[in-house]
Amino acid sequence: MTAAPAAPAASAAPAAPSFGERLEAVLAASGGLCVGIDPHPWLLDAWGLPTSASGVRDMGLRAVEATAGAAGIVKPQVAFFERWGSAGFAALEDVLAAARDADLLVVGDAKRGDVGSTMDGYADAWFAPDSPLRVDALTVSPWLGFGSLRGTIDRAREVGAGVFVLAATSNPEARAGQTARVADADGTSRTLAASIVDQVRDDDQAAGETRLGSVGLVLGATVDLASSGIDVATLTSVPVLAPGFGHQGARVSDLRAIYGPAAGTVLVSTSRAVLSAGPTGMAGAVRDAAEEVRSCLA
Amino acid sequence: MTAAPAAPAASAAPAAPSFGERLEAVLAASGGLCVGIDPHPWLLDAWGLPTSASGVRDMGLRAVEATAGAAGIVKPQVAFFERWGSAGFAALEDVLAAARDADLLVVGDAKRGDVGSTMDGYADAWFAPDSPLRVDALTVSPWLGFGSLRGTIDRAREVGAGVFVLAATSNPEARAGQTARVADADGTSRTLAASIVDQVRDDDQAAGETRLGSVGLVLGATVDLASSGIDVATLTSVPVLAPGFGHQGARVSDLRAIYGPAAGTVLVSTSRAVLSAGPTGMAGAVRDAAEEVRSCLA
Repeated sequence: MTAAPAAPAASAAPAAPSFGERLEAVLAASGGLCVGIDPHPWLLDAWGLPTSASGVRDMGLRAVEATAGAAGIVKPQVAFFERWGSAGFAALEDVLAAARDADLLVVGDAKRGDVGSTMDGYADAWFAPDSPLRVDALTVSPWLGFGSLRGTIDRAREVGAGVFVLAATSNPEARAGQTARVADADGTSRTLAASIVDQVRDDDQAAGETRLGSVGLVLGATVDLASSGIDVATLTSVPVLAPGFGHQGARVSDLRAIYGPAAGTVLVSTSRAVLSAGPTGMAGAVRDAAEEVRSCLA
Repeated sequence: MTAAPAAPAASAAPAAPSFGERLEAVLAASGGLCVGIDPHPWLLDAWGLPTSASGVRDMGLRAVEATAGAAGIVKPQVAFFERWGSAGFAALEDVLAAARDADLLVVGDAKRGDVGSTMDGYADAWFAPDSPLRVDALTVSPWLGFGSLRGTIDRAREVGAGVFVLAATSNPEARAGQTARVADADGTSRTLAASIVDQVRDDDQAAGETRLGSVGLVLGATVDLASSGIDVATLTSVPVLAPGFGHQGARVSDLRAIYGPAAGTVLVSTSRAVLSAGPTGMAGAVRDAAEEVRSCLA
């Protein structure tokens, strides 16, 4: 008598959707606006909130409320929560929980970067399914080499999360270092930013993520990408997180001019422009900003 | 009748000692050993502690106790506390308070790096006198340019704290990026690591910190510094935080060979080697390691 075939193992269940797949769905449904939750002390003042952990919690919760239904993505800036120590992180956990409840995609803007064994700690903090800090994607820094992010990227993919690797950032002081030349084996060279871009794109392709990858890039909208050695035409399947719009000087109407064929997968980050509208005006400001991004790509 | 001279304003009180001055005193009194508090999950297991916020608190507190009286400097690795969210940060706050009570110099190993206005949040988190996370010095990342750290460095100096800027880190994946060539105005070029080194040294000199500066460097002991374009002979007044000893391969007995005339201001970071001794053996292991560092410089 032949044994019956074993029941399918639990691991044969359909894989959870990848971050790239989830992001693609959000972009299609709500467009590319990404609302930065940056509770600067001066914004807390302007909102009539205390400069404290309680103030950043309130601003974060109201920003989530104002975004829900008007846009699909929020990006809390961890520094302004960390400012208040463990109480600030407790506030951030509440904001993250509210964002999850509101079905928003959450990018934790933490820019963590360290050696691989230490990055494991950060990866667990931001990706472990039992972590109160869990997010859909995290910004990470490649100062210690793209290779130092290997374990973090793998951990993210395992749980359907993603990372955005800092490549060409929007602040002018970054340019000298990010355009330093990295020597290639064949005697040619690339900019450091371009070498990060290439490694990110290759990583998504190697993972078979040909529609939209789970490993994205931070490419500032104020950066002259071509003169930084970055060809946006090669990035149509790589998510791009784009700071630099608004007070930093880039215009949303230039989205296609800046990112070319990759414009459709850009997360257009805005923060002051919508937070400055205050607690009562913010929902309307987010609705308008989201519509502006969609109409620029229509 | 002439008015009596006004009493000296409160601001005329003698300035608090700088981080460089405080570090110099610690190095003279206790030597260069810096005990890394890295509560990896496998170390928690080995110590019989739970892998939880409570476990990292216990390991951190016992590590502080084991270091007090045997060495002068501790360096908690923030990632392993952040792993547990706000509860992990509360544990870190307890560990930092215990380290302050034990008169240890504390380097927060957080490797934070962001644009200037965001770095203000991190600077307040780690340097504000009312912050539960306050430390004597913080590790910071220059991926966004040395200039992005300007406000953080100024804030640190204001309160007698310091920073260690990542320049040449000890992990092999970092080398390609950190040795990328930065073009100088005169047509020559330097490695990215060397350009950070030069900016740090110049910053200490510009601040008049000619004995020991408040802005230091992370220069891994496993790095071939000369081939990275770094001349250690120019660093005698710059604090150097040196990972890479022990399991990463560098030997404390090579301290002078690696850092030359700057060896006397190196913080020799050790973590696994002393934490692996377990809760009962750690104090002895720290004592031995501290003595080894001192004897190599005698």
